[in-house]
Amino acid sequence: MSDDVRMLVEEANAAFYRALESGVLERMVEVWAHEDWVRCVLPGWEMVVGWARVRDSWEAIFDGGQHMRAAPSEVWVRIIGDLAWVSCLENITVFNESSFDSAQAAATNLFMQRDGRWLMVLHHASPTPMIIPDASSDTIQ
Amino acid sequence: MSDDVRMLVEEANAAFYRALESGVLERMVEVWAHEDWVRCVLPGWEMVVGWARVRDSWEAIFDGGQHMRAAPSEVWVRIIGDLAWVSCLENITVFNESSFDSAQAAATNLFMQRDGRWLMVLHHASPTPMIIPDASSDTIQ
Repeated sequence: MSDDVRMLVEEANAAFYRALESGVLERMVEVWAHEDWVRCVLPGWEMVVGWARVRDSWEAIFDGGQHMRAAPSEVWVRIIGDLAWVSCLENITVFNESSFDSAQAAATNLFMQRDGRWLMVLHHASPTPMIIPDASSDTIQ
Repeated sequence: MSDDVRMLVEEANAAFYRALESGVLERMVEVWAHEDWVRCVLPGWEMVVGWARVRDSWEAIFDGGQHMRAAPSEVWVRIIGDLAWVSCLENITVFNESSFDSAQAAATNLFMQRDGRWLMVLHHASPTPMIIPDASSDTIQ
C-alpha cells in the first residue's frame, strides 16, 4: 500500500472524529458517502442503515448540544482496492455542566474511494471496559 | 456481484455462527484467517488483535461450557474484490441451568478470500437494545 493512500485514509478517519467533536452536522455530511446502504452502530443503539437515517441520527445527537472530545488512538489501516478498513480506539470525553465523563470505545470504520476522496460507509463503535491492557498476559482481560 | 460468490460468503458467515453454537474450538479455527492482524470485538470486551489472541479468546469462552444458540438475521453482503463485508443481527440465547437469556447484537463481519475460501478477518459485535424497531418513525429508537 502506498504511503500516500494510507495518509489520505488516516486523514478521512481523523476528519470523522473532528466532525464528531464539532457538533456541526454539515461536517458529518461531508465525511459520509450518501448511499442507502451505509451503516452506523453507536454504543447502545441498534444498527442504523442508509444515509437518510444515519444523517437523522447525527442530527439528533448534535441537537442534544453535548460538547465532547473524541480522539482516535491505535489507528490501524488496511486497504483493499477502493475500500479502506480502519480499526481504532476512541477516547471520548463528554462535558456536562460541571463535570465530565470519559469512556473508551473500539471502532471499526470503513471508507470507500470515490473520485479520489475516501468517504465513510460504516462506523461501528462499541464500549470497551476501562482496563489497562496487559500485553504480556495470556488471560482474557 | 455474482450470486455464486454471494452464496459462498453467506455460507462462510453462517459457518461462523454454527462454530459459535458448537462450542468446538476446532470449528472456530477453520473459520478464521490465521493472521496477526485479524480482529475480534465482543460485547463488553476490548478489541482483541491477532489470531493467537483471538484463538485464546474463543478457547476461554468455550471452556466456560455455556451452551448457546446464535442465529444471524438481516444478513447483508457487499463484496469488494477479495474482501466481503457482512452486516447482520445476531439473535443469541444463552442457556443456564434452569433458564435462558436472550439478547440481540449488531455485527460487522469481514472475510477475505484465500484460494477460493472466505476466511473471517474481523468479527465486531455490540449489544443492541431489545426494542422492536419502528421503521415508520423518524425519531431515534
